[in-house]
Amino acid sequence: MYKAPVEEIAFTLKHVAGLAPALDGGHLGDLSDDLVDAILTEAGRFATEEVAPLAEIGDRQGARLVDGAVKMPDGWPALYKAWAEGGWNSLTASPDFGGQGLPHMLHVAALEMWNSGSMAFAIGPTLTIGAIEALAAHGSDHLKSTYLPKMVSGEWMGSMNLTEPHAGSDLGVMKTRAERRGDGTYRLFGQKIFITYGEHDFTDNIVHLVLARLPDAPAGTRGISLFLVPKFLVNDDGSLGARNDAHCHSIEHKLGIHGSPTCTMIYGDGRFGDEPGAIGWLVGEENRGLACMFTMMNNARLAVGMQGVAIAEAATQKAIAYAKERTQGKAPGWQGAGKDGGQGSGMSPIIEHPDVARMLLTMKVLTQGARAITYACAHAVDMSHGVEAKHWAERASLLTPIAKSFATDAGVDVASLGVQVHGGMGYIEETGAARLYRDARIAPIYEGTNGIQAIDLVTRKLPLSDGDHLRGFIAELREIAAKAGQANAPALGETATRLEAAISDLEAASEWLLATLAEGKQAEALAGATPYQRLFGLVLTGAYLAKGALADVGDGRNGERAALCRFAAENILSETAALRDRVVSGAGSLEAARLVLE
Amino acid sequence: MYKAPVEEIAFTLKHVAGLAPALDGGHLGDLSDDLVDAILTEAGRFATEEVAPLAEIGDRQGARLVDGAVKMPDGWPALYKAWAEGGWNSLTASPDFGGQGLPHMLHVAALEMWNSGSMAFAIGPTLTIGAIEALAAHGSDHLKSTYLPKMVSGEWMGSMNLTEPHAGSDLGVMKTRAERRGDGTYRLFGQKIFITYGEHDFTDNIVHLVLARLPDAPAGTRGISLFLVPKFLVNDDGSLGARNDAHCHSIEHKLGIHGSPTCTMIYGDGRFGDEPGAIGWLVGEENRGLACMFTMMNNARLAVGMQGVAIAEAATQKAIAYAKERTQGKAPGWQGAGKDGGQGSGMSPIIEHPDVARMLLTMKVLTQGARAITYACAHAVDMSHGVEAKHWAERASLLTPIAKSFATDAGVDVASLGVQVHGGMGYIEETGAARLYRDARIAPIYEGTNGIQAIDLVTRKLPLSDGDHLRGFIAELREIAAKAGQANAPALGETATRLEAAISDLEAASEWLLATLAEGKQAEALAGATPYQRLFGLVLTGAYLAKGALADVGDGRNGERAALCRFAAENILSETAALRDRVVSGAGSLEAARLVLE
Repeated sequence: MYKAPVEEIAFTLKHVAGLAPALDGGHLGDLSDDLVDAILTEAGRFATEEVAPLAEIGDRQGARLVDGAVKMPDGWPALYKAWAEGGWNSLTASPDFGGQGLPHMLHVAALEMWNSGSMAFAIGPTLTIGAIEALAAHGSDHLKSTYLPKMVSGEWMGSMNLTEPHAGSDLGVMKTRAERRGDGTYRLFGQKIFITYGEHDFTDNIVHLVLARLPDAPAGTRGISLFLVPKFLVNDDGSLGARNDAHCHSIEHKLGIHGSPTCTMIYGDGRFGDEPGAIGWLVGEENRGLACMFTMMNNARLAVGMQGVAIAEAATQKAIAYAKERTQGKAPGWQGAGKDGGQGSGMSPIIEHPDVARMLLTMKVLTQGARAITYACAHAVDMSHGVEAKHWAERASLLTPIAKSFATDAGVDVASLGVQVHGGMGYIEETGAARLYRDARIAPIYEGTNGIQAIDLVTRKLPLSDGDHLRGFIAELREIAAKAGQANAPALGETATRLEAAISDLEAASEWLLATLAEGKQAEALAGATPYQRLFGLVLTGAYLAKGALADVGDGRNGERAALCRFAAENILSETAALRDRVVSGAGSLEAARLVLE
Repeated sequence: MYKAPVEEIAFTLKHVAGLAPALDGGHLGDLSDDLVDAILTEAGRFATEEVAPLAEIGDRQGARLVDGAVKMPDGWPALYKAWAEGGWNSLTASPDFGGQGLPHMLHVAALEMWNSGSMAFAIGPTLTIGAIEALAAHGSDHLKSTYLPKMVSGEWMGSMNLTEPHAGSDLGVMKTRAERRGDGTYRLFGQKIFITYGEHDFTDNIVHLVLARLPDAPAGTRGISLFLVPKFLVNDDGSLGARNDAHCHSIEHKLGIHGSPTCTMIYGDGRFGDEPGAIGWLVGEENRGLACMFTMMNNARLAVGMQGVAIAEAATQKAIAYAKERTQGKAPGWQGAGKDGGQGSGMSPIIEHPDVARMLLTMKVLTQGARAITYACAHAVDMSHGVEAKHWAERASLLTPIAKSFATDAGVDVASLGVQVHGGMGYIEETGAARLYRDARIAPIYEGTNGIQAIDLVTRKLPLSDGDHLRGFIAELREIAAKAGQANAPALGETATRLEAAISDLEAASEWLLATLAEGKQAEALAGATPYQRLFGLVLTGAYLAKGALADVGDGRNGERAALCRFAAENILSETAALRDRVVSGAGSLEAARLVLE
C-alpha cells in the first residue's frame, strides 16, 4: 500500500526545486519552514490513510450512470467531504474568497500525494481548482461573489467543458453556440465530450465552465467565449434554484481512472426548464474565451504532470516491496538462505537479481527526475508573482511542457516496469500494479497530448527572449555539472563528465532547432520535437539529481542520493546522444519515409 | 479492423528470413512456393474474417467460471470448431498422427495472424500444439496412440501445468506430488496456478500435462516428472470414461486477454472419483520431466514472441487508419482543405503532423523488425532438422530469447504508441486500441520473463561454440551492411554507415560480455543483460530491414522498404551506442546504487 514519501518530497521542494532559498529570501510572505512541513505531513497522512485505501473500490465499481445521475464509488462522497473539510481545496485560492493563498509548490506536492493515493479521485478537485482560477481571474464581481466562496470551500465543484467530437486539441472548430438573451444572460446549446467530473454526487451543485460560440463570432479560435453554466441556478440568497438545462447524457467506458466520471454533457436540449437552452453567464469578454482558458492551462498541464509523478511513485513503492518479498532463482553471488527456509535451491529475493535492480533503479530515477522537474516548474510559477517576474514567467513557460510530458511518460514507463517486476502477479488486477498501468495511460494524452507539448516547447518556449532564456538555463545546468566535478566525490562516479556531455547534447539540439526555426523550416524542426522534449527532461533529471546529491542537509541520505545520481549519469543519460542525433539528423529520413504511410 | 498483411508476411518469410533459398535448396521437402502462398492466404482470411470480429466480445465477456465449468465467450466455441476443422491445429504435427508436417515458418506466420485477430483466442491452441510436441517426443506408444490423433485434429485440447504459487520461473521448489500405483499409473495431488485454458467448453476432453514430484525424487529441478492427466479418462475404445479428479477452482481477473481462461487447477482433492488423487500417466522417464518440457520451451517462447508481433501489427494498422481519418490542427506545410470541408482552420489529418508520422514509422519499424527476427528464428528451427544441424540449432537457440523479448517489448511499446496516436479516443475501450495495450502486457512476462530471456541469452547462448557462433552471425550482419553500402542507393541514406556502427556496438558489447563471463564476473555481465538483449534486437531490426530493402522482387515496393530502412537506420539505431555503454560501463553504478533499494 502507498505511503506518502513526505521526507523525499520536502527535500526535493526545498533543496532541489528552490523552496528553501525562496523561504530564506522572503519571497513567500510569512510562510515558515515549519508550516511547510506541517502541511506536507498532513497532506501525506490524508493521502496515505484516507485516499489510497479507497482506490481499489473506485477502480472496481467505477462511476455509474443511473437515470441521468452519476453514482460515485462507495465511500468516495464521504472521502470528498473529509478532503474539502480538511481545507485542501482552498490551498492556493485567494483569501478574498476563503482561500489560504499558499504557494503553488505546496499545491503540486499535495497533488502528487493525492494522485498517488487515487488518480481517479484527485482529478476531480484538480478541475475545480482550475475553474476557480479562471473565474477568479476573469469573472465579474457578481459571478465571483456568487460562486467562488462555495467553490473554494469545496461545497460546490466545477468542471471544464472544452472538447467536442471533432474539436479535441483544435478548439477553433467547436460548434456549441450561445445566444444572447438581452438580460445579461445567455442560452447555450451543444454537446461536449470527455468532461471530467461533469456529473457526480459529491456536491449539490456543479459549476460548469463552457466554451461556446456566439452567433456573430469570428471563425476559428478568436470567436470563442467562456460561459459559466451551473447545474442548478442560484437564487439571490445563495440557495439553489431550478435545475438548469444541462445534463450528463452518458459516461465513457475507459481503460483506467474508472472512478472518474468522463461525461458527455448536453446543453440546451430542453430536458430541463421552461424553454430549451442552458442559462449561462459570460466569463471575461465575448470572443475572448480562449484567453481565459490559457490563464489556467499551464497550471492544468502541470497538474497532469503531477499525476505522472504520482503514478510513478506509487508503482515504484509497490514494485520494491514486492521484489523484496518474492523469491525466485538464485542471483549471482547470493549467499542467503532464501525465504523458503532452505528448501529447494535457496532462492533469493528477486531484488537481488541485477536485472530487477536495474528496473527498480530506473523507476527511481524517472520518478525522482519527474518530481524535481515538476516542482521546479511550480517554483517558477510562484516566483513569477514577485521580482524578476519576466524571468520566472519564462522559466515556468519553458518548464511546463517538459514537466507535463516527461512526468506523464515516466508514469507510463514506470507503471509498465512495475507490472514487469511483479511477473505474472502483475497481470492480475487484484495486485494493483495493473491499475496503475491503466490509470497512467491517459496522462500523456489529456490537457494537450505530449506531442502538442513538444510543438509548444519547440515553437513557442525555445524562442523566448530569442533563445536567451534557454541559454541562461543551460548555463545554470552547467554550473551544477561543474560543482559535481569540483566535489571530487568518488560516490558520484562519472556524474560530472556525463552530465556535462548530456548538457552539450541539449545545447547542440537547442541551437540547431533555433537556427532551423529561424530559417523558416518548421517541419524539420517539428520532426525532432518529441526527441528534443525527452532530451530536455533527461538532462534536467540528471542535473536535479546531482543538485540533490550535492546538497548536504545532514539527514544521512547523502550516500543514497549520490548513488542514484551516479546510476542516472552512467546508465540513463547515455540516451541523450541518440536523442540529439534524432533532432539534428532525423528529419530527412522521417520526411522521406512518409510514403510508407500512404 | 485488422486485415492480415499476407503480402508483407510472405515477403518477410521468403526474402528476409530465408524461406525462398530454403525452398530453392530443397530443404523443405516438396513444399512449393504456391502452397506457401495458398496457406498464408487462407490463414490470413481466417484471421481477418473469422477471428478478428470476435475479439471484442471475447474481451468484454471474458471467460466465466460457472459451477466449476468455464463458459467461453459467445461465438468462441464455434470459432474454435471452425478453426480446427480448417486443419489449422495440425500444421506442424507429424503425419503419423494426422498432422501435415509443414515447416515451423508457416506455423509462426499463421500464429502471428491469429494472434492479431485475437490473442486471447490464439493462445489456447498454441498450448495444445506445445502439448502435442512434448507428447510426440516423449510419450509412450500407448499414450501417443490414445491421445495424439484427437489432439492433432483439435477434437481435444491440451494444457501445460508448471507454475505453483511459490514456483514461477524457478520450478525446483514445486510441491505437487505424484504417487506410484503399481499398475503403471500415478495419482497426483497438488495445486497449479496460471494454467492457460486449463478449463473451457471448446472440447469434450482436456489433456493436462502436469509437472509433479515423486516421493523419492531428488530435491530441486532434477526431481521433477511429467504426467499426462486427462480431464476425462479414456476407455480402451477411445470413448470418454469417468471424470478424473482434476478441476478448475477459480479463474483470474486479469488486465487483458480476458477471453483466455487462466485457471487455478486442483489435482486430487477427492472432488471426483472413488478415492482422492488425479490419475496420471508418466511422460518420458521419472525425474526427467524438465527435459521433456525443454523440448517445447523454445517453440513456446517463439510462439509468445509471435504474440508481440501480432499485437504490434494490429496496433499499427489501427493507428494508421485513425491518423488518416482524424483531423486536428494544421501540420506545417499542409495545403489540403481538411476533412471539415474548409470550416474552421483547415485542419489536416493528424498523420500529416511530423510527430504523429514519427510515432507511426517507429511502430512500423518495430513491428517489421520483430517479425523478421521471429521468422528468422523459425527458419533456424526448420533448418536444424537438416544438414548443418548444429549450426542452425545454435542459431535457433541464440535467436529464441531475442525473438521472445524484442517482439514482446515491441508489442507493448507499439500498443502504447497506438493509444497515444488515438488521443482521447484511445483511452475509450470501445476503440480497441486500449485492448491491445492491455493484451500486450502479459507477453513480456509469461514463458520466462524478458529478464530471464536476457539471462539465458548472456549466460547460455552467447557462449555457444565459445562465442564463435555469435561471431559468425555478426560477420553475416556485416555483409548486409556492406551490401547496403555497395548498393549506392540514395534512398537508403546513411543506412550502411549507421548499420555498420550499430553492428560494431553489438560486437563490442558481445566481446565484453564474453570476456567478463570468462573472468567469472557473472553479476557484472548480468547487470547489462537486458540492455544487451535490446541492443541485439535493434541491430537485427536494422539488418533485416536492410536485407529486405536490398531484395528486389519486382513487387513495386522497393521504395517503401528503402525508406523504412533508412528511417530505422537514421532514427532508431542511434540508440545502440547508449545500450552498448550500459553493457560495458553500467554495472558499477548499478551495484553501487543497490543501497538505494534497501
